Amino acid sequence: MRHDGRTLNMLRPVKIETDYLIHPEGSVLISVGNTKVICTASVEDRVPHFLRGSGKGWITAEYSMLPRATGQRTQREAAKGKVSGRTMEIQRLIGRALRAVVDLESLGERTIWIDCDVIQADGGTRTASITGAFVAMTIAIAKINSEKQFRIFPVSSLLAATSVGKTIEDELIVDLDYIEDSSAAVDMNVVMTGRGEFVELQGSGEEATFTRAEMNDLVALAEEGIKELFEIQTNALGDMADLIGFYGSVPE
Amino acid sequence: MRHDGRTLNMLRPVKIETDYLIHPEGSVLISVGNTKVICTASVEDRVPHFLRGSGKGWITAEYSMLPRATGQRTQREAAKGKVSGRTMEIQRLIGRALRAVVDLESLGERTIWIDCDVIQADGGTRTASITGAFVAMTIAIAKINSEKQFRIFPVSSLLAATSVGKTIEDELIVDLDYIEDSSAAVDMNVVMTGRGEFVELQGSGEEATFTRAEMNDLVALAEEGIKELFEIQTNALGDMADLIGFYGSVPE
Amino acid sequence: MRHDGRTLNMLRPVKIETDYLIHPEGSVLISVGNTKVICTASVEDRVPHFLRGSGKGWITAEYSMLPRATGQRTQREAAKGKVSGRTMEIQRLIGRALRAVVDLESLGERTIWIDCDVIQADGGTRTASITGAFVAMTIAIAKINSEKQFRIFPVSSLLAATSVGKTIEDELIVDLDYIEDSSAAVDMNVVMTGRGEFVELQGSGEEATFTRAEMNDLVALAEEGIKELFEIQTNALGDMADLIGFYGSVPE
Amino acid sequence: MRHDGRTLNMLRPVKIETDYLIHPEGSVLISVGNTKVICTASVEDRVPHFLRGSGKGWITAEYSMLPRATGQRTQREAAKGKVSGRTMEIQRLIGRALRAVVDLESLGERTIWIDCDVIQADGGTRTASITGAFVAMTIAIAKINSEKQFRIFPVSSLLAATSVGKTIEDELIVDLDYIEDSSAAVDMNVVMTGRGEFVELQGSGEEATFTRAEMNDLVALAEEGIKELFEIQTNALGDMADLIGFYGSVPE
Amino acid sequence: MRHDGRTLNMLRPVKIETDYLIHPEGSVLISVGNTKVICTASVEDRVPHFLRGSGKGWITAEYSMLPRATGQRTQREAAKGKVSGRTMEIQRLIGRALRAVVDLESLGERTIWIDCDVIQADGGTRTASITGAFVAMTIAIAKINSEKQFRIFPVSSLLAATSVGKTIEDELIVDLDYIEDSSAAVDMNVVMTGRGEFVELQGSGEEATFTRAEMNDLVALAEEGIKELFEIQTNALGDMADLIGFYGSVPE
Amino acid sequence: MRHDGRTLNMLRPVKIETDYLIHPEGSVLISVGNTKVICTASVEDRVPHFLRGSGKGWITAEYSMLPRATGQRTQREAAKGKVSGRTMEIQRLIGRALRAVVDLESLGERTIWIDCDVIQADGGTRTASITGAFVAMTIAIAKINSEKQFRIFPVSSLLAATSVGKTIEDELIVDLDYIEDSSAAVDMNVVMTGRGEFVELQGSGEEATFTRAEMNDLVALAEEGIKELFEIQTNALGDMADLIGFYGSVPE
Repeated sequence: MRHDGRTLNMLRPVKIETDYLIHPEGSVLISVGNTKVICTASVEDRVPHFLRGSGKGWITAEYSMLPRATGQRTQREAAKGKVSGRTMEIQRLIGRALRAVVDLESLGERTIWIDCDVIQADGGTRTASITGAFVAMTIAIAKINSEKQFRIFPVSSLLAATSVGKTIEDELIVDLDYIEDSSAAVDMNVVMTGRGEFVELQGSGEEATFTRAEMNDLVALAEEGIKELFEIQTNALGDMADLIGFYGSVPE
Repeated sequence: MRHDGRTLNMLRPVKIETDYLIHPEGSVLISVGNTKVICTASVEDRVPHFLRGSGKGWITAEYSMLPRATGQRTQREAAKGKVSGRTMEIQRLIGRALRAVVDLESLGERTIWIDCDVIQADGGTRTASITGAFVAMTIAIAKINSEKQFRIFPVSSLLAATSVGKTIEDELIVDLDYIEDSSAAVDMNVVMTGRGEFVELQGSGEEATFTRAEMNDLVALAEEGIKELFEIQTNALGDMADLIGFYGSVPE
Repeated sequence: MRHDGRTLNMLRPVKIETDYLIHPEGSVLISVGNTKVICTASVEDRVPHFLRGSGKGWITAEYSMLPRATGQRTQREAAKGKVSGRTMEIQRLIGRALRAVVDLESLGERTIWIDCDVIQADGGTRTASITGAFVAMTIAIAKINSEKQFRIFPVSSLLAATSVGKTIEDELIVDLDYIEDSSAAVDMNVVMTGRGEFVELQGSGEEATFTRAEMNDLVALAEEGIKELFEIQTNALGDMADLIGFYGSVPE
Repeated sequence: MRHDGRTLNMLRPVKIETDYLIHPEGSVLISVGNTKVICTASVEDRVPHFLRGSGKGWITAEYSMLPRATGQRTQREAAKGKVSGRTMEIQRLIGRALRAVVDLESLGERTIWIDCDVIQADGGTRTASITGAFVAMTIAIAKINSEKQFRIFPVSSLLAATSVGKTIEDELIVDLDYIEDSSAAVDMNVVMTGRGEFVELQGSGEEATFTRAEMNDLVALAEEGIKELFEIQTNALGDMADLIGFYGSVPE
Repeated sequence: MRHDGRTLNMLRPVKIETDYLIHPEGSVLISVGNTKVICTASVEDRVPHFLRGSGKGWITAEYSMLPRATGQRTQREAAKGKVSGRTMEIQRLIGRALRAVVDLESLGERTIWIDCDVIQADGGTRTASITGAFVAMTIAIAKINSEKQFRIFPVSSLLAATSVGKTIEDELIVDLDYIEDSSAAVDMNVVMTGRGEFVELQGSGEEATFTRAEMNDLVALAEEGIKELFEIQTNALGDMADLIGFYGSVPE
Repeated sequence: MRHDGRTLNMLRPVKIETDYLIHPEGSVLISVGNTKVICTASVEDRVPHFLRGSGKGWITAEYSMLPRATGQRTQREAAKGKVSGRTMEIQRLIGRALRAVVDLESLGERTIWIDCDVIQADGGTRTASITGAFVAMTIAIAKINSEKQFRIFPVSSLLAATSVGKTIEDELIVDLDYIEDSSAAVDMNVVMTGRGEFVELQGSGEEATFTRAEMNDLVALAEEGIKELFEIQTNALGDMADLIGFYGSVPE
């Protein structure tokens, strides 16, 4: 039994509220327990310098936390004048993960800007961001599709993420909240596609290590949790879920 | 009749949802039409350098907009590495306004950090921030009071704000939304106390001017709107509203 | 009687020395009592990005203080690597005020850069900057006019500014020096045109408030002082004063 | 056969030159094929703020590349005025990896600063940095030991890293050089201890994915390569290698 | 004959107006032809970190140009968010030069902040800054002396500077104005003490060179000009000039 | 006799290892005693803004030290977010010195980027950088020449630099190491061409001065040392040395 009554392989309650904001092309409020993230997807009709004229599109992500998303107030990065290493690491991860299930050629010369703003944090903000951002992005791309139908719908597969970890009592658990995360010996973030393949696997021990057997058990635990997230995403997307991977063969 | 069906002196629907987040000592989500701001108040048991040892407390405010709070995505200030002049102007205004109704000596050597994060913008974000932040701040101070009762409750009066403006057809209107604000000839922000006195008055014409008679009419229009806001704040605060200005005489 | 012997409605001695520097198209040294500001106007034959191709010009302002303009040395903003909120607020105010009396279409695709550098500060630096910058700007625009005559002279009216305030003894005074400003309960900056209309009105109480009657009295006091400033500006401009508002009807 | 004649599971030639510089407490030049990194370890007799008085030490790392370490010159981060996300990610990884095999309590209130400066880059700079930095760090800690003998030698185990990847022809390869890295479908960095446990596992596909079976094969390939690195490190350390994990029981 | 009618060894008219500002402990406006610099000296009763408790004082200098001190407006360093290499080079030179004639031990644990702000530039701003700053500094130190008499007056000697150069017609000239400076083949700045010794000698050719004979001729030319500057400084200082080097023996 | 056994006019052992790195067009590792600098020259087929279309090329230099090049670790400039004044001064000096012996018109519209990275410091890093950078630059220009022969080889002369100084015992010495440099009364850096002319002369006393006679003796001492450096450069360049100043007449 975990401190909040969950069993080892139980996720926290997950809710995805779509069209949360009026301006963005796609937006959701995702809650994973007490962790709450506003994810938006903005479409821009141009691409970064290195892709101009290539016919390919781009997906990029930014991540931030409100100063009082946390138990103690944290200083704004704008006030400090620079983005922290942790923030950069997370926004690079989100962008890379989403690009793994988007056919950038089908997307065409457009950029999808993903913004993940954590309004309340209780562990797992980066994996909640990926899970929510996937839905916001798919809504935005579906919106483009409704105006100018894609030959191949650019989103090739579902995509979701969760965390798994090893406690200092050597128990393996899924979807760590803040208390569990702070004391874990090993922490692993796993991002998977709807086809059951990995996109990202980031396991690390802070002053601790893990064996190959533990690695396999952690990954299995994550896989089980992510399958539940796919259902919640599918429900949130409604009809739009049918567009994913639907047209022709998926590029790779 | 205005473009959204309001009469000249009609506010948009205002809603203040208290205890919106679990971590901050005080927090609200205020909606003024489609403008939505998360306002939090965080209590810190120390004061800035210039007040150490003075026995006085401090109120300071920060303001930000999510990148996609607006119709077009705006770049994050953290990514640009600096806070814009507009943001600085607004956060100085919020802090100054709140300090006008707080007895900093009664508060004691504490800082209240106000954070106003606009999650959706449709005009009037700075006045919505002040109106919401007042409620969040009062909740946080009431929370301190419930633990260690103040001799004089530090909040001496209600405080709220709205905008008024002159259209290019010379009509005077209250609570401008984004469309009205963009085309107004003159724009004025008014902050008032529950005693009917002014704390801030900022009127400016961008490539336009106003007469003394217009100034008086604009101020009267604002006063009328702010009175409605006081009622909504009082309802949101519930019993805590009774603490305001209650103990002994209010400091100068 | 005030601490320096002035009556409540008396300005400090004001002097405007034109053509103070050899390089700028327009330049003045304005002294308001011990406050001294070098104001320059530089003409550039291009406009900011958002105006290219519009046929309209632009006026923008920057403000700074020498480190030892003040009683205590203040650190340079260049050394700190960022411009303070106070500076940004002031330079936005100066630019907005000047634009209110310039017909940007008549000006054509040019930018006038205003630089206000305070070499000695004794209160009222932002209003002295506006009053002086107006003269420097008009000289620069008259210089363009002498080379390539405008159909409509772009400056439509005189423009000047002063401060008014309420002391802690509830007296209303004009043109506050540093000592008066530091202890004032309410401080208001007023910018007016030669036609007697307002361009900017910024009143604020730091931990204090003001009534509607006080607002009207303060504004009247400012108006009286600003009329004196118009005379001094007119003398400084000499023949150039006749160009203001002269050609055809003023736009807007 | 790979483009440079290696088989799939063959590392490039690795050389570790110790005491490369005269000033640092520990320093090496590590070459992995054409990748060359100067790794230094500097001992400071104080710890970061969050550890003061705790009796524990700290290990922190910084990473940089000379502008012309690469085929095209890259701009200096000092000239840009900020450290890139990639650099931050790498230096956080190096620090975390090293801390996993150091008993910070035995180390005592000291900081070991690790600096990894890439003077020539040909793929695998982050794993070469970890492998080289481990040796430099151990030399520096052995130097402290020779002056004031530790009860428990703070380094509990060997530590080394390599990269593995999946090519677009679905071949799994170890120790990717720049050409291989640029075209790989999946890239994984693996950090292991001398006891055969994992410290970090970072696998990611850029617009590609991998299965659980591939994950296991990649990890096995990495393990094989890292064992060779342990031998090279042991030779480079000479007698100092015997200190590792020698005294008493290793801390958890 | 030079373009402005001077002979090769003739300085421009030099004027030093003392007590130019009311706030600083020492201040001058120095004019060298059309080059005008406000130099101030501010006394602070503390020293930088590296001198605390040493009993020694410090002299440090900052330099800046108003944006329109030059023919073309230059962007403010505060707006750019960083100080240019040229500015840093100049302010380091000014500080080093002044320290050469100040006995920092006699000065005691105080910092003299020198600020040189160029309000109009026409070549030779750095040498004018040194010549003017020396006077401002001496006034500030004399002011300390009048309150609490020094045993050894900390200023040991006069100090002044000028520029010399070689034209592309191989003529050697002193005190180059902007036109001469822009086209010179070789440019040399010379700082000397009242005892005829050198403190700084910085000669450089931009895409040009100079011989040893030319070096000696340039230095002689500078020496001649600097002697005239010493007279002007002595007149500006009046009685204070007698304090220089007066008490006891001057420290090495 | 000096602390390391050298006579007053003796250089430390100097070694120039060419083609030290595989990527740059020109690269050397120069050692001057324990001072070691990697100098690279990178060719870019474009010029800075101010030279576009002029037909002229450009040489620019950057300089940095590894954090542990020094006895105490120094913080990285990238981490501080800005380049220090000392670094800027040095990189401006290196660029200016090299440009003095390059015919920028012959070079054509290309930029040569010089990077000097000090990996070990023991005094004289700026002069070692110039001496080494000259060789790296010449190799890079010879490489361009071998592909597309210049009509006039752009390098017109050899160029090298050393330091000289006056000790506190009034002895004049050449090529100061760190210990000598730290305690010197006067320090002078001299850059000369193979024709025996000066390019840069920077002498300064920190709290000390020097006479004209001392200046001449110091310069003579430097000249003698630089002649030895020319031989070492010539050997390092091999056949390429013959290209210098060879074709037609040298521009100037």
